[in-house]
Amino acid sequence: MNNPFDLIRPTLLLDKEQCIANVKMMLAKAQRSNVKFRPHFKTHQSAQVGEWIRDLGVDAITVSSVKMMKFFVDNDWTDITVAFPMNVHEAVVINRVPTSTTVNLTVLSAEVVKALDARLTRPVELFIKIDTGYNRTGIKAEDKTAIDQVLAAIDTGKNVSFRGFLAHAGHSYKAKSDTEVADIHNTTMHLMRELKEQYVSRYPNLELSIGDTPTCSVMDDFSGMTEIRPGNFVFYDAMMHHNNFCTFEEIAVCMAVPVVAVHPDQLKVIFHGGGVHFSKDVLQDENGNPMFGHVVQIDKDGWSTPLKGWRVAALSQEHGTLVADSAETLSQIQIGDFVGIIPVHSCLTADAMKGYYTLDRECVDHLEGGTPNQ
Amino acid sequence: MNNPFDLIRPTLLLDKEQCIANVKMMLAKAQRSNVKFRPHFKTHQSAQVGEWIRDLGVDAITVSSVKMMKFFVDNDWTDITVAFPMNVHEAVVINRVPTSTTVNLTVLSAEVVKALDARLTRPVELFIKIDTGYNRTGIKAEDKTAIDQVLAAIDTGKNVSFRGFLAHAGHSYKAKSDTEVADIHNTTMHLMRELKEQYVSRYPNLELSIGDTPTCSVMDDFSGMTEIRPGNFVFYDAMMHHNNFCTFEEIAVCMAVPVVAVHPDQLKVIFHGGGVHFSKDVLQDENGNPMFGHVVQIDKDGWSTPLKGWRVAALSQEHGTLVADSAETLSQIQIGDFVGIIPVHSCLTADAMKGYYTLDRECVDHLEGGTPNQ
Repeated sequence: MNNPFDLIRPTLLLDKEQCIANVKMMLAKAQRSNVKFRPHFKTHQSAQVGEWIRDLGVDAITVSSVKMMKFFVDNDWTDITVAFPMNVHEAVVINRVPTSTTVNLTVLSAEVVKALDARLTRPVELFIKIDTGYNRTGIKAEDKTAIDQVLAAIDTGKNVSFRGFLAHAGHSYKAKSDTEVADIHNTTMHLMRELKEQYVSRYPNLELSIGDTPTCSVMDDFSGMTEIRPGNFVFYDAMMHHNNFCTFEEIAVCMAVPVVAVHPDQLKVIFHGGGVHFSKDVLQDENGNPMFGHVVQIDKDGWSTPLKGWRVAALSQEHGTLVADSAETLSQIQIGDFVGIIPVHSCLTADAMKGYYTLDRECVDHLEGGTPNQ
Repeated sequence: MNNPFDLIRPTLLLDKEQCIANVKMMLAKAQRSNVKFRPHFKTHQSAQVGEWIRDLGVDAITVSSVKMMKFFVDNDWTDITVAFPMNVHEAVVINRVPTSTTVNLTVLSAEVVKALDARLTRPVELFIKIDTGYNRTGIKAEDKTAIDQVLAAIDTGKNVSFRGFLAHAGHSYKAKSDTEVADIHNTTMHLMRELKEQYVSRYPNLELSIGDTPTCSVMDDFSGMTEIRPGNFVFYDAMMHHNNFCTFEEIAVCMAVPVVAVHPDQLKVIFHGGGVHFSKDVLQDENGNPMFGHVVQIDKDGWSTPLKGWRVAALSQEHGTLVADSAETLSQIQIGDFVGIIPVHSCLTADAMKGYYTLDRECVDHLEGGTPNQ
């Protein structure tokens, strides 16, 4: 029974060294373009991982909810951007944040600016969310009327001031080539620079904030922007690898799961690990079959490259199903073994697991988790 | 801004009255067939919901992991079946359960029985997992050789004894008609009865345990079985309703989510609520489009029937997207409103949210949650 980490149940392994290497790589990239590095903490949601990043000199972060902001305020971060359209009902939480902490919120309508300003009892800085082509949310970069309406509301507010424009080019996640990533990135940079030209005379300090993991991984030039905010790169995952945004070696998390049944007649292995551990994002393999991750071998130092001939074919609430391409392949995995599964989407897997276990056998926290799920 | 529950962020509303009505309905059904009611607690994972069920006279439960078993042992349940193929590494947790508690585990190979028996320091009862057609895991009902091998291992074990056969006809979830559910149910009942006939002389007290939510909801006759173990029925959800296994009124949970942006040009509404709140299970609407739940209106007493013309079109990590079929439909929902989303899969949504808020404004716990996400 292969169990080099002496685990008892599904556990999210974290390669601390690789994680720190990923952060150093991205930090160096930001420095080369002379832009601020404001990493998104929604992927790891961990105070301890945050400390590793702080130790590299990072002092400003991004989060995706007010709840997450509160968690990192409690962990002594003092410059936090909530890169999510502000929910005015959470102003009450913002008001409890010490004023020594800079809170940057994201808005895209005058209505929200006014409602927010009326509820706030402390100053905040506002980014206007710009849609540069992702088409999820934000004001279209070309829609100056809407931008001017938001700016007018900010200018008349008591507790709000304008910090700049913020974009998330999330359509890059589905880009099929580096050229396509480059097109998305260059369009975003162009639209953001245009906005700056248009508004810099009124707001001399206005910032331009961009940066998703695909463009930040593939591209090297961010000049003209103020900051980049990638998040997923801290761990990467099978989805990022699938689209060639990272190497397999850069992936820093792996689920270790126990094998509970083998069905030789069906070339099938059942492990403990389902939607409650991985969430449910899925890729397609080269034959168009659903694939919920890569199967790897766990050893005392970490994990191997993907084992050939295996597919993570299904996840239900607690069950995971591996399918092998032959009896010989099947014989590689036995009941009681812990096998590794590289998750499709590390952000959601980390959020489901609420804790990590490093290759150095240390527990690492996750928001609302405390101890890892092991 | 419609916010009758004074919420600040995504919150899972629980209709306690409907939940209890669902339990009463299923309990009465079990009683009419003279079978034991051993509800599966994997859906709610809540000590408090467990108490509501205990108050109705239920004293035996089902769980889907050893971790969940431990939680309900700590909450004074004394007859628990772990309906998941046993992971032998968790024997150490079983050994810490007081012997006054009856622990029933699920096995499907002699190998696991032997490894488990060697690790145990307290008695457990074993169900043999039978595959009656779901084809996920279990010994095929016809495979007497494999069953006999497991029984031989149990008979020679020190700490293990045979309790009976257990089946989960999970293919019923995809049944398209009551006739199809009936076929699945009747096949399962038939195969289980045959096993009993074959083995009852050697094991006079052997039990037959069946029961998923679709068959238990649609069918009325469980005679000849010892017990039924449905779980999802406690809340039901959009998936169960989609396949006509429940009425819309029987659904007992609803996510209340704040609207953070409206895009009239795209007939689109953005709310705070994504994969970290709902998980990612998805249905298809009548046009084959992805649908991540039903949109309902929240009022002070609960929620409405589905609003016409709306679709929950996408979920990312924290963002949810609603699409309206017209400007008139769009005008029903404003920024700052809390709208209701009936989740596709209530088990995974409850697991993601880790807490509930009842229509009576009471917080209800969930394993590893404590207070609800509100």
